[in-house]
Amino acid sequence: MSASSQKLYEGKAKIFYHTDEPAVLLANFKDDATAFNAQKKGSIIDKGRINCIISSKLFQLLAENGIKTHFIDSPAPNQMRVKALKILPIEVVVRNIAAGSLCQQTSLSLGKVLLEPLVEFYYKNDQLGDPLLTLDRLNLMQLATIEQVDIINNLALQINKLLQAFFLQCGIILVDLKLEFGLDSQQQILLADEISPDTCRLWNNAETDQNNRVMDKDRFRKDLGKIEDAYKEVLHRILNAIPHQRNNWN
Amino acid sequence: MSASSQKLYEGKAKIFYHTDEPAVLLANFKDDATAFNAQKKGSIIDKGRINCIISSKLFQLLAENGIKTHFIDSPAPNQMRVKALKILPIEVVVRNIAAGSLCQQTSLSLGKVLLEPLVEFYYKNDQLGDPLLTLDRLNLMQLATIEQVDIINNLALQINKLLQAFFLQCGIILVDLKLEFGLDSQQQILLADEISPDTCRLWNNAETDQNNRVMDKDRFRKDLGKIEDAYKEVLHRILNAIPHQRNNWN
Ligand SMILES: Nc1ncnc2c1ncn2[C@@H]1O[C@H](COP(=O)(O)OP(=O)(O)OP(=O)(O)O)[C@@H](O)[C@H]1O
Ligand SMILES: Nc1ncnc2c1ncn2[C@@H]1O[C@H](COP(=O)(O)OP(=O)(O)OP(=O)(O)O)[C@@H](O)[C@H]1O
Ligand SMILES: [Mg+2]
Ligand SMILES: [Mg+2]
Repeated sequence: MSASSQKLYEGKAKIFYHTDEPAVLLANFKDDATAFNAQKKGSIIDKGRINCIISSKLFQLLAENGIKTHFIDSPAPNQMRVKALKILPIEVVVRNIAAGSLCQQTSLSLGKVLLEPLVEFYYKNDQLGDPLLTLDRLNLMQLATIEQVDIINNLALQINKLLQAFFLQCGIILVDLKLEFGLDSQQQILLADEISPDTCRLWNNAETDQNNRVMDKDRFRKDLGKIEDAYKEVLHRILNAIPHQRNNWN
Repeated sequence: MSASSQKLYEGKAKIFYHTDEPAVLLANFKDDATAFNAQKKGSIIDKGRINCIISSKLFQLLAENGIKTHFIDSPAPNQMRVKALKILPIEVVVRNIAAGSLCQQTSLSLGKVLLEPLVEFYYKNDQLGDPLLTLDRLNLMQLATIEQVDIINNLALQINKLLQAFFLQCGIILVDLKLEFGLDSQQQILLADEISPDTCRLWNNAETDQNNRVMDKDRFRKDLGKIEDAYKEVLHRILNAIPHQRNNWN
C-alpha cells in the first residue's frame, strides 16, 4: 500500500483503501473484534492476518469451483486486493444447523440439524441491528430485484455446499455462514466481504462438548476463552487441506 | 357466568372460562393494558367493555360476509361466548400503511401507504417476544401446514378488505391489524381472539396531526393521553355505522 493510499471506509473488521486502479480496492484486515452490533468490543491477537489468509484461501477455492468472487490477490498476510463493488445491503445467512438468532427467535434448539440448508436474508443496516427480512420486506424496500434475489439464493446454496464439504475435510462442521454480495460495473453479482471464523459458525467435528467444539467468534461473544487458539487452529487445518496453495508468508 | 365457572386461562387482556358446553368458552374482557411484551403495564378505564362490544360487532360484520369466526354471542357487555378452538401459535398481521415494528426493522417510514396489503406472520410466543417469521421458519417449526398458511393468508386479506372498507365508513383508516386463527374439532380454520383498538392501528381520517389521529393502543404505548376518549370514539363510530345491530345494553 503506497503512502498516498486514500481510505474509502473503515468498518468494524476491515479498512478499505482506494488503489491506483479505480476498479480495485485494498482491504486491510484488523484485529478488532465486535459483537452484538458493536455493543461488545475487543481485540483478537493476529485476527487480521488469520482471517485474511483464511478468506483468501476460501475465495480461491470457490473461484476454482466456478464461483465469481471479488478476490484478486493477497499482497500481504493481512491485506487483500479486491474488485470494488456496490455492496447489496443484504446479509445472506446460510444455516445447516440451528444456532444463534435462529434459536432465539424460534423453537429450534441449538444443534438441531436442518433437513436442508436454510437461506435467510437480513437487512444490512447497523443502526437497525441487521433485522431479519421476509421476502416481502426485501421486495418492498427494493434492496434487490427478484431476479437478483434468485441468483443470490442459488449462489449462497452452492457456496455453502462447497465450503461445507471442504470444512468437513478439515474436521470442521460448517454450522452457518454470513455472505455479502456486490455488483461490479457490468451489474454482475460477485461474492464479496470475507469468509472467516468471524462470519461462520465452525464446530470441531472431533469434539462433543458444546463449548469446547466452538472454533469461531462465538468464543468471543460468549467469553469461552482460547479465542486465538481456535482461529489459529482453523487456519492451520485449512492450510493443511490445501498445501499446494501455501504462500511463502505462511 | 355461573359461580362454578372454571377458569381455562387468564391472558393479558382476557380471561377464558369453561362453560357447561365443552365446545363453548366464555371470554371475559379486562381493563388491563400491556405493551412491549408486558414490560409496560397499566389499565384503560372501561376497555374490557368497549373492546368486547367492538369485537362482537366486527365479528358479526365478518360473519355476515362469509368469514367463519369463533364468535357466538355476547351475554354481557364485557363478555363473549366463543367456540373453543386450538389456537395456532401464529400472530397474523395485515398492514395497509407502514407503522410500528415494520418501520423499526426496515427503511419504510411511518405512514407510507403500501401498494398492496402486506401479510406477515409472527411466532406467538411471549417468552421469545413474538418474533417475525419467514415462511421457511414457519415451515421448519411446523406451526401450520402449507395448506393452512395459504388459507390463513387468503382469510387475512379478505378480513382486512372488509374491515378496511367498514372503518373508512366510520372515518377511520385501518393502518394494520393482528389476527389469530384456531382450529375447531373438525380442523376448520376460524378467526379467533379479538379485533379492537388493542389489536388494530386505527387513524382518524379527519386528522392530519400524527399524534392526534391515533385512536388505538399506540396512545397507551407512546403515552399520548386521552386513551379512554379514543377507544370510546371508535366504539361510538362503529355503533353509529351499524345501528340496526345495537343491543339493549348499548
Ligand atoms: N469488494 C468490496 N467492495 C466494496 N465494499 C466492500 C467489498 N467487500 C466488502 N465491502 C464492505 O466493506 C465494509 C467494511 O467491512 P467491515 O467488515 O469492516 O464492515 P463492518 O463494520 O463489519 O460493517 P458491516 O456490518 O456493514 O459489514 C462493509 O460494509 C463491507 O460490506
Ligand atoms: N376461541 C378461542 N379458543 C381458545 N383460546 C382462545 C380463543 N380465542 C382466543 N384465545 C386465546 O386466549 C388467550 C388469552 O387471551 P389474551 O388476549 O388475554 O392473551 P394475551 O395475554 O394477549 O396473550 P397472547 O399474546 O397469547 O395473545 C390467548 O392466548 C388467545 O390466543
Ligand atoms: Mg463485516
Ligand atoms: Mg391477546
